Amino acid sequence: MISFTKIKLYGNKKGMDFMRVSQLLNPTLREVPAEAEIVSHQLMVRAGLIRKSAAGVYTYLPLGLRVLKKIENIVRQEMDAKGGQEILMPVIQPAELWKESGRWDIYGAELFRLKDRHNREFCLGPTHEEIITDLIRGEVRSYKQLPLLLYQIQNKYRDERRPRFGLMRGREFIMKDLYSFDQDEAGLNKSYQKMYDAYCRIFSRCGLRFRPVEADAGAIGGTGGTHEFMVLADSGENGVVYCPDCNYAANVEKAECRPQAIEDVEIDDQRKLVHTPEVGTIDEVCKFLAVPKTRLIKSLLYQGDDRVFLVLIRGDRELNEIKLNNALGGFVSLQLASPDVVEKTLGCKPGFVGPIDVPAGLLVIADEEVPLLKRAVCGANKADYHFVDTVPSQDFRIDQVFDLRTVEPGEACLKCGAPLKEARGIEVGQVFKLGTKYSKALGAVYLDENGEERPCVMGCYGVGVSRSMASSIEQNHDDAGIIWPIPIAPYHCIIVPVSTKDAQVVEAAEKLYQDLQRLGVEVLLDDRDERAGVKFKDADLVGYPLRVTIGSKTLGNGQVELRERKTGETQLVLVEEVAQQVKNIIDKANSF
Amino acid sequence: MISFTKIKLYGNKKGMDFMRVSQLLNPTLREVPAEAEIVSHQLMVRAGLIRKSAAGVYTYLPLGLRVLKKIENIVRQEMDAKGGQEILMPVIQPAELWKESGRWDIYGAELFRLKDRHNREFCLGPTHEEIITDLIRGEVRSYKQLPLLLYQIQNKYRDERRPRFGLMRGREFIMKDLYSFDQDEAGLNKSYQKMYDAYCRIFSRCGLRFRPVEADAGAIGGTGGTHEFMVLADSGENGVVYCPDCNYAANVEKAECRPQAIEDVEIDDQRKLVHTPEVGTIDEVCKFLAVPKTRLIKSLLYQGDDRVFLVLIRGDRELNEIKLNNALGGFVSLQLASPDVVEKTLGCKPGFVGPIDVPAGLLVIADEEVPLLKRAVCGANKADYHFVDTVPSQDFRIDQVFDLRTVEPGEACLKCGAPLKEARGIEVGQVFKLGTKYSKALGAVYLDENGEERPCVMGCYGVGVSRSMASSIEQNHDDAGIIWPIPIAPYHCIIVPVSTKDAQVVEAAEKLYQDLQRLGVEVLLDDRDERAGVKFKDADLVGYPLRVTIGSKTLGNGQVELRERKTGETQLVLVEEVAQQVKNIIDKANSF
Repeated sequence: MISFTKIKLYGNKKGMDFMRVSQLLNPTLREVPAEAEIVSHQLMVRAGLIRKSAAGVYTYLPLGLRVLKKIENIVRQEMDAKGGQEILMPVIQPAELWKESGRWDIYGAELFRLKDRHNREFCLGPTHEEIITDLIRGEVRSYKQLPLLLYQIQNKYRDERRPRFGLMRGREFIMKDLYSFDQDEAGLNKSYQKMYDAYCRIFSRCGLRFRPVEADAGAIGGTGGTHEFMVLADSGENGVVYCPDCNYAANVEKAECRPQAIEDVEIDDQRKLVHTPEVGTIDEVCKFLAVPKTRLIKSLLYQGDDRVFLVLIRGDRELNEIKLNNALGGFVSLQLASPDVVEKTLGCKPGFVGPIDVPAGLLVIADEEVPLLKRAVCGANKADYHFVDTVPSQDFRIDQVFDLRTVEPGEACLKCGAPLKEARGIEVGQVFKLGTKYSKALGAVYLDENGEERPCVMGCYGVGVSRSMASSIEQNHDDAGIIWPIPIAPYHCIIVPVSTKDAQVVEAAEKLYQDLQRLGVEVLLDDRDERAGVKFKDADLVGYPLRVTIGSKTLGNGQVELRERKTGETQLVLVEEVAQQVKNIIDKANSF
Repeated sequence: MISFTKIKLYGNKKGMDFMRVSQLLNPTLREVPAEAEIVSHQLMVRAGLIRKSAAGVYTYLPLGLRVLKKIENIVRQEMDAKGGQEILMPVIQPAELWKESGRWDIYGAELFRLKDRHNREFCLGPTHEEIITDLIRGEVRSYKQLPLLLYQIQNKYRDERRPRFGLMRGREFIMKDLYSFDQDEAGLNKSYQKMYDAYCRIFSRCGLRFRPVEADAGAIGGTGGTHEFMVLADSGENGVVYCPDCNYAANVEKAECRPQAIEDVEIDDQRKLVHTPEVGTIDEVCKFLAVPKTRLIKSLLYQGDDRVFLVLIRGDRELNEIKLNNALGGFVSLQLASPDVVEKTLGCKPGFVGPIDVPAGLLVIADEEVPLLKRAVCGANKADYHFVDTVPSQDFRIDQVFDLRTVEPGEACLKCGAPLKEARGIEVGQVFKLGTKYSKALGAVYLDENGEERPCVMGCYGVGVSRSMASSIEQNHDDAGIIWPIPIAPYHCIIVPVSTKDAQVVEAAEKLYQDLQRLGVEVLLDDRDERAGVKFKDADLVGYPLRVTIGSKTLGNGQVELRERKTGETQLVLVEEVAQQVKNIIDKANSF
């Protein structure tokens, strides 16, 4: 055996929660970067938190990474508190598993795919249902091993067609994903509730103003319920409706509608074919015929995978394609039929499609409000002609009726009747009842108490870690920069000596820097040889919660200035008391 | 603004450093998995630390991830202590940067490559010189910003032809990589020494027996020095020579050789062409001609990229292709010339190549020992013929002489003359002086004190985090399983109640479990309804440093059994004292 060089070890147990700004890689910018459309993206670049490495792909600089790690740790603590066990699954996933689940072919262009040197196919995981179900089918045998809550915090990949908004819609981003495995639906419901509660705590602790909303199951599949956790911000890409009187809130994609009849009288008139030349849009048709949009039936020929069907909805309503797809059982691809298909199916152009005298084999489905119409206008399947005074179900066939429209603000809440309001939201988390979709496909089964084989009942639960960071900035900023909530701030406090030439000021700053370190406050000392104004601007831009300014004037009275970034309030504090005061403010904010 | 649901928050500040085994996903196996060739791979699978997701791609289960995180934290602390700043760079890297550095075309099949939906090329980073140099060229302007030490801990990718040995040679693995940017060579030398020292501390703290060895620069490029940190283990893929008397140690690929002359007499004889039918190997030739291998010249026609040259080395020596490649300035591809090329160049088969009367344009290079030969045998460039009694430089041309051979154990240390010894090593870290290769290629320049533009002088420094975990097991195990050093153990201590039916035993176990938690000891309670033997076997297999066994017999005397995994030593300890005793052992091991 080799005799080793003796290595002298010295004490250094903690990570570095303090730093001199002169040594910190924190390149701040005064100008707004041209490519950054939303404020969080602008401020993250300007404050030197991130830099772009490729479209939708970022490098986290030291301060950005610190925020990220703080959010990760909050997530980790709350997952652990609910009995979650942290694991780490691979980023590169073999295609075989995705073929077993059936998602390899249907996931589409957002899946990054690659081949290894032996030409075997892989993808970069956008999510890990396949990998974890494969793990569980190998390791779980008995009901005694359930429930299991397994999570990881890791890079995820989505080949966005148009990556933008910085960390909001990146191609490489960081998520926490937890998967629950239970014996039955009752177990799943418990796991789901645990995660729902944990998510409320996570986003509260991160200082986010958020709302859990009912949501659509989307591409992950599964039959159970799902909630999205929406951070409310004008830049949000999601529409949310909520009731100001009760706790109802939903993604507009999902929000159920109560059908509303319009006042009208029944008529005895037969329907009439009317020449409607040179009118194309619904507005033009209504104007030409002098009828309100509420009495027009929009007739839309849709193609879901290989199947063609006719969809009817009132002229003043917006068709909700997600509801449409769910109503018909879920197509991989759903879109308006091309003009060719319309011509072939109904013998006319898309603008004149109508439900009357359509081929016997064509499925006709209608929004709930259509059968309530008493006399309606519709296309005649003939160029430049419409029918007026048609009566649904009498003049034409309706095969199935569903809630197919998008809710509108002002409509009555389904729960309490109060008028709904609308907001914009950023989705930072989702909890999802998967059921047995993946456990059945991949054979993740267990033996129950009676020795019978049953599939695990699964849930999945995601938190967008990097997106939560961006969302916090959307909610917490002003013209000067970011305003971090203390629990996720990159550092708690920055010390700004007004002059680096005044020995007393420098000495007081150095002493406070040491004192705050000793108290466990995460502290920066802005020791740069810059004007005070530059230092203040940078401190405001990065958004440290507390700033202690040390100048010769106040120091003459034994005082320093303590300023809160959020309120802008300043106070003079005795130099020997400021460290403890800072510590108290931090501790109060971090107590939960 | 929406009014939010009130969320009640409760206290839970710490992560979970305690757990009941009944709830832990820790699937242990009694059998050795067939595919696992080395002990660390076998034990990691058997102890339920990892599971394979694809060839060379693993999932870390809860206990495996805990070990990994501990190593990561040790690495992080030591990097921070040297002024390193943690950042996080992307896994997917745009091809453009690799084309700028020139590595896109030369990196070969080990680089995982992929295209996005717009057909743009990316790779999965095996290393991050390009990304970080791109970052620095955008952010660093002045010498005042240097030095910079930036690091990350992250997944790395290498498309191994034959992934094996578990985490030792995976395709997705975890590394710490730090990059240093300095003004000049003197600065680089300082940064290099900092990292060298930090690495010694890291591997010491991880409880590894290791040795820094001089190494070859390899594919990363750069002109300066490099050391590899080798964990010594029989399963190591690297050969290491070291001097037992001084501190010299080197990778065999790199170790310099002192040329050794063999005793021989000069002769006046002219060289003779000898018919040597049906002899192929060197052994056969020597036997046929009755000469020792030391007097034979191996003549090898090599092809480096598009260039062909002849290499001469003594018959008893092993040609070191890495030295050969370095000697000639570095080829992208270097290999023995194919029989076709040999035929075309010298008109014979590879077995009969020799240096005499070769074409004038053919470069002939020789190991230092070849010119020292006084009468040698060599091929005649003619099937079934050799020359004997040839005299180098007289009978044939030697254009250049280098140290081209691989060192052998027993040779004299170049520093002190003592006989060198040989060992096997696992490379867990490397420190590397890159110089200006990347900063020049990508234009990462700064203005010096005189306002002149100069390229940053770079270094790079890697630690194989997942590989360190495997290496620790190679060094620390016995027939029963893993023996974790305390600083990287998944949990410090496991409590084993011998019976789960004895109320007193259960109560004592539960109390100790609480007490140890309160003391901050990472503790497991094996509350499973299993026989004590099964629990002991699992505890030994996973390798927790300390085990407290609670049985009714000793408990009757107010005692429990404390056992150290490493030594197997057990002692009876008073039940009210055991928690503090455990705590003391842990603290002592973690003090550094």
